[in-house]
Amino acid sequence: MEWIVDIVGPGFAQATQVQDVLFDGRSAFQHIQVASSPMFGRMLILDDAVQTSERDEYIYHEMLAHLPLLTHPAPRRVLIIGGGDGGTLEETLKHPIEQATLVEIDQDVVTVCRRFLPFIGGGGFDDARTRLVIDDGIEFVRTTSERFDVILVDSTDPKGPGLALFSPEFYAACTHVLAPDGLLVAQSGSLLYQRELTEMVRRHLRTVFPVVGTYWAAVPAYPGVLWGFSYGSLRHDPSHVNRTAISKRLTTIPTRLYSADTHTAALQLPGLPDV
Amino acid sequence: MEWIVDIVGPGFAQATQVQDVLFDGRSAFQHIQVASSPMFGRMLILDDAVQTSERDEYIYHEMLAHLPLLTHPAPRRVLIIGGGDGGTLEETLKHPIEQATLVEIDQDVVTVCRRFLPFIGGGGFDDARTRLVIDDGIEFVRTTSERFDVILVDSTDPKGPGLALFSPEFYAACTHVLAPDGLLVAQSGSLLYQRELTEMVRRHLRTVFPVVGTYWAAVPAYPGVLWGFSYGSLRHDPSHVNRTAISKRLTTIPTRLYSADTHTAALQLPGLPDV
Repeated sequence: MEWIVDIVGPGFAQATQVQDVLFDGRSAFQHIQVASSPMFGRMLILDDAVQTSERDEYIYHEMLAHLPLLTHPAPRRVLIIGGGDGGTLEETLKHPIEQATLVEIDQDVVTVCRRFLPFIGGGGFDDARTRLVIDDGIEFVRTTSERFDVILVDSTDPKGPGLALFSPEFYAACTHVLAPDGLLVAQSGSLLYQRELTEMVRRHLRTVFPVVGTYWAAVPAYPGVLWGFSYGSLRHDPSHVNRTAISKRLTTIPTRLYSADTHTAALQLPGLPDV
Repeated sequence: MEWIVDIVGPGFAQATQVQDVLFDGRSAFQHIQVASSPMFGRMLILDDAVQTSERDEYIYHEMLAHLPLLTHPAPRRVLIIGGGDGGTLEETLKHPIEQATLVEIDQDVVTVCRRFLPFIGGGGFDDARTRLVIDDGIEFVRTTSERFDVILVDSTDPKGPGLALFSPEFYAACTHVLAPDGLLVAQSGSLLYQRELTEMVRRHLRTVFPVVGTYWAAVPAYPGVLWGFSYGSLRHDPSHVNRTAISKRLTTIPTRLYSADTHTAALQLPGLPDV
């Protein structure tokens, strides 16, 4: 069996054994693979980086979707940028929203994930409230006349098609398509090994949002386990939510990990090595 | 350069490159190595498991020592079981205590660490308040007539000489040498990959301590990064401390990571995968 070796720091690597490669192809944008592993089950791999895994996808997707969606008092229209595996979409559709618009640049990612990783996206793509748009997320945000309550940026690392989704121009464009009390959350990399990325995202968000912060989740398949999500909000502050109201709304939203307690804990960043 | 490969789960490994091996020998108890790595600097390796590293030792040692020492209102006598590298001792001696007794089973660990990793233990072994006892920790606790305010169990994994330090008999013996308001903290393994160990330690502590819990720290060199520490206390509860009092005491105790905020955050366990 082969190993996927992810060099996360100088002379430091995380290695995952691969049993079967179920799909291996190139789209117009990237190298797409689906492989199975003893540790994490099936994994989506884009340009050699593990994007999501059968075992722990729910941690990443629940924390990306529910924390902002429950920070907003009543989200109706949600925009997902990226997230072609459908995991963020599935979590979003658990809420009583009117519409979820998913803008993914690469149709092949959606097609491959629906075929080989259907348990990640669930039936999200077939939900009547879902609108799938195959387009550049930046282009979509720049040109749409719609308004959204919550934007979820479920991107790859800042390289290839994902790069522009970390720019201040993109975040500025997002503020123009958000409702006056809207908020945006973006995955912002490994807290341990992409600290400059986290700092950059926060800096860029601060240029256009009054409320900015970072929260985290423990995602075992990702380098360094501690994964960051950064938010920019026009009004509602994720760190000042009504925990009772969250728990009440959650009675009709099934989650495995996210809860009012998880919400609070996620906003408390752990002490990290200063060298 | 060679790599130390630590298999942390089925088909999942963490690998650290080694530049130079500075020491390689066998004591009466274990295989002792000191090696340098690009990522973590010098590392102490016992029976092939990385015990501590130049880069992140302070995270582990500060969190093991200061959280219980600042939970206790005025510790005077501290017992350290294991911890032959001196890191826990060094942090303990930052407090205005009367005596720190370090009971290490393996003299060679102390000798090797003092020679090759002097920056971990600092001058702790030369401090007039330090008493070094080379003995089996269980034997010491069973036979001493002394009493301690805080016991810090800085052990290896539960195998080899470290195994008995996880037994209910050991914790019971500890309660007999603790002052009536004393507490004990033990490193209790990887939150992700030694979950049964964490549960076992908590279960064993509950048989003899009224106040039991777990806190954690992010230690990059350790498997799964999220590292657990479990406490048993006869009176003081680490989760009900006076943060103002802690901050006041810390003005004379230099730390890099530990603070009243870190204390609170460490007690909030992150959501973990349930499979």
